[in-house]
Amino acid sequence: MELGMIGIGRMGANMAQRLVRAGHKVVGYARTASTVEQRVKEGAISSGATSLEDVVNKLSTTPRILWLMVPAASVDDTIAQLLPHLSPNDIIIDGGNSNYQDDIRRANELKKHNIHYVDCGTSGGVWGLERGYCEMIGGEDEIVKYLDPIFKVLAPGIEAASRTEGRENKGGTAEYGYLHCGPHGAGHFVKMVHNGIEYGIMAAYAEGLNILHHANIGKREHQVDAETAPVQSPEHYQYDMNLPEITELWRRGSVISSWLLDLTAHALLQSPDLSNFSGRVADSGEGRWTVKAAIDEGVPAHVLSAALYDRFESRNEAEFANKILSAMRFEFGGHHER
Amino acid sequence: MELGMIGIGRMGANMAQRLVRAGHKVVGYARTASTVEQRVKEGAISSGATSLEDVVNKLSTTPRILWLMVPAASVDDTIAQLLPHLSPNDIIIDGGNSNYQDDIRRANELKKHNIHYVDCGTSGGVWGLERGYCEMIGGEDEIVKYLDPIFKVLAPGIEAASRTEGRENKGGTAEYGYLHCGPHGAGHFVKMVHNGIEYGIMAAYAEGLNILHHANIGKREHQVDAETAPVQSPEHYQYDMNLPEITELWRRGSVISSWLLDLTAHALLQSPDLSNFSGRVADSGEGRWTVKAAIDEGVPAHVLSAALYDRFESRNEAEFANKILSAMRFEFGGHHER
Amino acid sequence: MELGMIGIGRMGANMAQRLVRAGHKVVGYARTASTVEQRVKEGAISSGATSLEDVVNKLSTTPRILWLMVPAASVDDTIAQLLPHLSPNDIIIDGGNSNYQDDIRRANELKKHNIHYVDCGTSGGVWGLERGYCEMIGGEDEIVKYLDPIFKVLAPGIEAASRTEGRENKGGTAEYGYLHCGPHGAGHFVKMVHNGIEYGIMAAYAEGLNILHHANIGKREHQVDAETAPVQSPEHYQYDMNLPEITELWRRGSVISSWLLDLTAHALLQSPDLSNFSGRVADSGEGRWTVKAAIDEGVPAHVLSAALYDRFESRNEAEFANKILSAMRFEFGGHHER
Amino acid sequence: MELGMIGIGRMGANMAQRLVRAGHKVVGYARTASTVEQRVKEGAISSGATSLEDVVNKLSTTPRILWLMVPAASVDDTIAQLLPHLSPNDIIIDGGNSNYQDDIRRANELKKHNIHYVDCGTSGGVWGLERGYCEMIGGEDEIVKYLDPIFKVLAPGIEAASRTEGRENKGGTAEYGYLHCGPHGAGHFVKMVHNGIEYGIMAAYAEGLNILHHANIGKREHQVDAETAPVQSPEHYQYDMNLPEITELWRRGSVISSWLLDLTAHALLQSPDLSNFSGRVADSGEGRWTVKAAIDEGVPAHVLSAALYDRFESRNEAEFANKILSAMRFEFGGHHER
Repeated sequence: MELGMIGIGRMGANMAQRLVRAGHKVVGYARTASTVEQRVKEGAISSGATSLEDVVNKLSTTPRILWLMVPAASVDDTIAQLLPHLSPNDIIIDGGNSNYQDDIRRANELKKHNIHYVDCGTSGGVWGLERGYCEMIGGEDEIVKYLDPIFKVLAPGIEAASRTEGRENKGGTAEYGYLHCGPHGAGHFVKMVHNGIEYGIMAAYAEGLNILHHANIGKREHQVDAETAPVQSPEHYQYDMNLPEITELWRRGSVISSWLLDLTAHALLQSPDLSNFSGRVADSGEGRWTVKAAIDEGVPAHVLSAALYDRFESRNEAEFANKILSAMRFEFGGHHER
Repeated sequence: MELGMIGIGRMGANMAQRLVRAGHKVVGYARTASTVEQRVKEGAISSGATSLEDVVNKLSTTPRILWLMVPAASVDDTIAQLLPHLSPNDIIIDGGNSNYQDDIRRANELKKHNIHYVDCGTSGGVWGLERGYCEMIGGEDEIVKYLDPIFKVLAPGIEAASRTEGRENKGGTAEYGYLHCGPHGAGHFVKMVHNGIEYGIMAAYAEGLNILHHANIGKREHQVDAETAPVQSPEHYQYDMNLPEITELWRRGSVISSWLLDLTAHALLQSPDLSNFSGRVADSGEGRWTVKAAIDEGVPAHVLSAALYDRFESRNEAEFANKILSAMRFEFGGHHER
Repeated sequence: MELGMIGIGRMGANMAQRLVRAGHKVVGYARTASTVEQRVKEGAISSGATSLEDVVNKLSTTPRILWLMVPAASVDDTIAQLLPHLSPNDIIIDGGNSNYQDDIRRANELKKHNIHYVDCGTSGGVWGLERGYCEMIGGEDEIVKYLDPIFKVLAPGIEAASRTEGRENKGGTAEYGYLHCGPHGAGHFVKMVHNGIEYGIMAAYAEGLNILHHANIGKREHQVDAETAPVQSPEHYQYDMNLPEITELWRRGSVISSWLLDLTAHALLQSPDLSNFSGRVADSGEGRWTVKAAIDEGVPAHVLSAALYDRFESRNEAEFANKILSAMRFEFGGHHER
Repeated sequence: MELGMIGIGRMGANMAQRLVRAGHKVVGYARTASTVEQRVKEGAISSGATSLEDVVNKLSTTPRILWLMVPAASVDDTIAQLLPHLSPNDIIIDGGNSNYQDDIRRANELKKHNIHYVDCGTSGGVWGLERGYCEMIGGEDEIVKYLDPIFKVLAPGIEAASRTEGRENKGGTAEYGYLHCGPHGAGHFVKMVHNGIEYGIMAAYAEGLNILHHANIGKREHQVDAETAPVQSPEHYQYDMNLPEITELWRRGSVISSWLLDLTAHALLQSPDLSNFSGRVADSGEGRWTVKAAIDEGVPAHVLSAALYDRFESRNEAEFANKILSAMRFEFGGHHER
C-alpha cells in the first residue's frame, strides 16, 4: 500500500522503514527539509515531500492514507492544514499520543468532510523497528479492515511470544500484536491505560530496588534525640545488595520477569549506581489521563496515581507542601528543620 | 503529691511547672547541672537533684513516683540506672514517645522487681503549659487511679472544649483530657495512632494548600514536544491564591476547622511563602509504628502511609528509585532527563 | 437588602432564614409549591414565588440579586430559564457545588447579556443556620463588594474563633468567615480544595480509628498454612479500645482536635460500633475535581487521592480489579480463594 | 548429591522431582505417610522417610543436607526436632517463605551447634518443575558454594531468557537463575522484596484492567441530586472493552509485556468476566515485610503499600473505617447512606 508519513522523527522514521522493508510505499514529510533528505538517504522512506500539500499530491492511490506521527499538541494544526488538500474518503491516522477525547472530537469534525479518522496508540519505543509495534486501534470497522496490511507489517507478529493455551482456534489479530479495540478513541484509550499500567509497574520495580539499595542502612550511625526515633533494629539492615546481579537473577524463573526488568538489568549492568541519571522523571500525558479516567469512572487507582505523583515529586513539585508541614511542626512543637 | 521529673528539657520543664503551680512537689533532674539550676530559678521545679539516686532520695512519700521525660532511646538505660535505688511498689511513668511494645516488655521486667510501670502518651507540644496536656495512659487500674491527681492537673480540663451532647451524665475523665486507655502499652498505642492521624491530617492540609499554591500554573509558558503533554486547559489555572487569607477564612464555619489549621493560618500570616523553611520534614517514630500496626492487623492505611512516605520523600529518600525510572525511560524510549 | 433564593431545600432555607433574621428580604422559590408554603410558614423566607419569573418580578430593588441553591447539574438550566426575565446589571450567585470551570464558562456567557455572575462555595452543612457559613467567593470586585451585607450576615462572624496573633491591624473579611478569593471560579476553586482536604482529614481519622478498632486482633485464632503468614506478635494486639472515650479524650489539648473530631466523638457516643451505618460512602464531586486539578497542575496528591479512592472502594468499585488479582494468584501459584 | 527434602507438598515434591531427574538422590518426608508413599510412586523422591530422624539416618553422605519446604510458622519447630539427630557441619536450608529476620536469628542459634544454615527464597510457583526456580540465597560463602550443584539443577538455566548485552564475559550464576545474595537472611530479604514488587505489578495490571472494564460507564443512567455530582462527560465512556483480546495484544511489542501478563491473558481467555472468582485476595507475609522494611529504612513505598492495602480492603478490613466516614457525613451534613 501507499501512505504519507507526516512526522519522521525517531518514531516516525522507524515505522516508515518497517513499512518500506515490507514493500509498502511511504512518502515522508518533516518540517525541516534536511530531515527529509536524511530519511531518504537512509532508505527509511520511499520519497520525501516538501509540504503537507506535496505529501497529498505524491500519493497516487485513493483513498489516500495519511499517518500522523507528530506531538499531540500539533495534531489539530496539522489536520487543519491538511484538510484543504484532501478528498472525500481519505483517511487520517493519528499514531501519536493523543488524548482519546480529542480523537472523538476530531472524528466527528472530519466526518462532516467525509474524511475518515483512525486513532492508533503505539507502544514499542526505540525498539519498534526491530521488535515491531504493539498497535491499539480505534475507528470504523471497514476503514480499520482496509488498513490491515499496514497494521500487520508494523506489528511484531505471532512469533514474538509463545502462544496462549486455548488460542489455537480463536483467530483474530491480537496475537499478532495489533487490535481494533473499538470505535473512535478506543485505540488511544487502551494505549492510555497501557501507559498508566506502565507507570505502575515501573514504580513497583523502582520502589523495590530502592528498598534493596538501602538494605545497609543499619551500618550508618544514627543520632539519638527526642525528635528522631532510633532505627529499631540496625542488625537487620546490614546488606550490601548487588543490584545488577539481582535484577539479572529475576529475569529467569521468577514471577516478576518482564521486558521492563530486562531493560533494568541492562541499565544497572552498565551503571550499578545509575550516577548518569539525576532522578528527575518526566511524564507525558497518558499517566495523567488514566487517573482522570479512573476518577470519572469512580474506580480506585491507588497504585497508578501513586506512580504518577512520585514523578511529580521527583521534580520537586511537593516543595511547598513540605514547607507547610515544617511550618506546622514548628508551630505546635517548636521543631526546627535540620 | 510528690514526684521526680527525670528529663526537664522543654517538655519536662513545662509539665513540672504545671504540677508545681497546682501545689504538687516536683524534684527535677537533668544530666546537665546548669539546666537543673535554671529550672529551679524559673520555678519550674520545686527542687533539683544531682543524680538519679539523688532524685529518689529526695522523694519522701512512698510509693515514689518517677516521671521519665527522656528520649525514647534512653528510657531503658534510665530505668536500669534507677532500679537499684527503688523500693517495691515504687512507680515509673514513661511520659515520652516510647513504642508501646517496649512498654509491655518493660512492665513485665519491672513486675519482677515489684515496680509498677505506667505509660503515658502526651500530646500538646510547646503549648501544653498553657493549654494543658492530652494524656493517654496505660497500666494497672489501681496505680493509674492512685496517680489521678497528677494526671488531672496536667490535663486541659473540661472547659477546654464544649461539651459533647449526651455526655452530661456519663462521667469519666475523657472530657477532662486524660484517659486510662487500657493495660500496659495502651497509652502509647493510642498516642501512636494519634500521631499517625496527625501526620495524615497535616498531609491533607499540605497537599490542598499546594494545589492552591499552584493554581496559577496556566500563566507559565509550557513547551510543546513529543514527551511533554501540553497543559490541558491553562485558562483554568490563572488564580493567584492568597493562602494567609484563605487559611484564616477556613477557621470559621467550615468543616475543616481545627487546631492545626489555626497554627497554619498563623504561620502563613507571618510568612506567606514560608521561605524560612526548606521543606525537609522529620518524622519521629509514631507515624512509622502506626503503619506497622496497621500491617500487623491487616487493615488498610493508604492515607497514613502516604503521609509518612511524603516525609521520607521530602528528605530525598526516593532518589535512587527515581534514577531507576529515568534509566528505564532511557532504555525503552531513549528519553533523556531534562 | 433584597434577594431571591432559588432552591429552598435544607441548605437554601437555612441560609434564607439567617438572612431574614438579620433584616434582609428574601423571596424564596422551589419547584414544589408546598415547599414554598412550608418555608413561608416557618418564617425562613419573607415571601414565596410560584415561578422563576415570579421571583424576578417580586424583587423591587435593582440590580436584582438571585442566589441559586440548586444541584450542580441543574444550574445551567435554571440560568437559561431565568435569563429572559432579567435586566442588565442583575446578579446571579451560584451558592451550590458547581465545578469552578463551569463558573468561568457561565460568567463569560452571562457577560454578553450584561448579567453579573458570582460563585460562592459554602461550607457549614446542616450546622450553618446556627454556626454561620464559611463563604469562598469568586467574581468581579465591585459586585462582590456590593453584596457584602449579604455575605457578612451569612458568615459566622469574628467571634467564632479566637483571633490569630498578628491579625490585629490586618483588616479584611477572612476573619469574619467570608472572603473574596479572586476572579470568576476562584470561590468554587477554593471550596473544591476545601472539600478535597476534608476528604483527606476524614480518611486520616477513619484509618486511625480502624487501627484502634482492630487492636485486639491478637485475641483471635489464626490458621497456620503455607499461604498465610502467622500474625507476627499476637501478644501486642490484645487491646479492647474504647473509641467513644478516646475520641472524646482527643478533643482537649491534643494536636488533632478539630470540629470533625467533635462530630466523630458525638457519633461514637451514640453508637460505639456504628452499627447504624453500612459503610458505603458517597462522594459528591469536589473530591474528584481536586485530584484532577492536582494532576493538571502536576503536583502530588497522594493523600487526597487515597481518601477519594477509599470511598470508591467502600462502594465495591474495586471488585473486578480484585478478581484479576485472584486470577493471577491462581495462575502462577494454584492459589484458591478462601 | 544427596539431600533430605522435608515437606513434599506441591512445591517440595516438584523441587525434589527436578533434583531426582538430574541424578541427585532425594529422601523425602511428610507428616502424612500416604503423601510419602504417593511421592515415591510418582518418582518425585528417591525414597521416603517415616520421621525426621529417619530422614537424617537415610542420608549417607556428610555433611548432611536438609532442605525444609514447610510453612514459615513450622520452621522453628522442625529445626528443633531435627537438631538432636544432626552432626556438626550438617546443613539446613530453609527454602520456604521465612522472614529474613528469623533467618538471622536461626543461623546464630545453629552456629552454636556447628550446624550451617542457608536461606533460599524460591520463586516459580506451580510452574517451577517445568520452568525451573529462581533462587535467592543467603548464607556462608563456602556452604553456598558447596551446594552449587543443587541450586544449579533447580534453577531455570541460562537459556531461559535472552542474554543481557554486556554480560558475555561477566560470569557468575545470576544469569542461570540463582544467586548468592549475601550473608544469612540476604536470600529471603531479596525474595521478600521480589514479592513486594510482585504485589505492586499485579496491582498495576488489576487497576488498569478495572479502568478498561468500566469504560462503558457512560451508558448507565445516573441520578441527579445535590449529593452526587453528575458524570462529567458520559460521551467519553461508551466503550465495551474486550479484555481477553487486549491483554493478549499487549503480550507482543508493548512496554508492559511480562510473565504475569501472559498468565492474565490466559485467565481472561478462559473466563472474560472472571466470574469464577469472588475477589477476596490473600496476602502471605512478604508483601507486609517489604513495607515494614521500607519504613525501617525510611524510604517511600507508596505503590507497594497501596498494593498491599488493596488486598486488605478486598477482604473488607476497611469496613469500620468506612462506617466512620458515613457517620461523619451524617453528623456534618445530615447525609444518609444509600
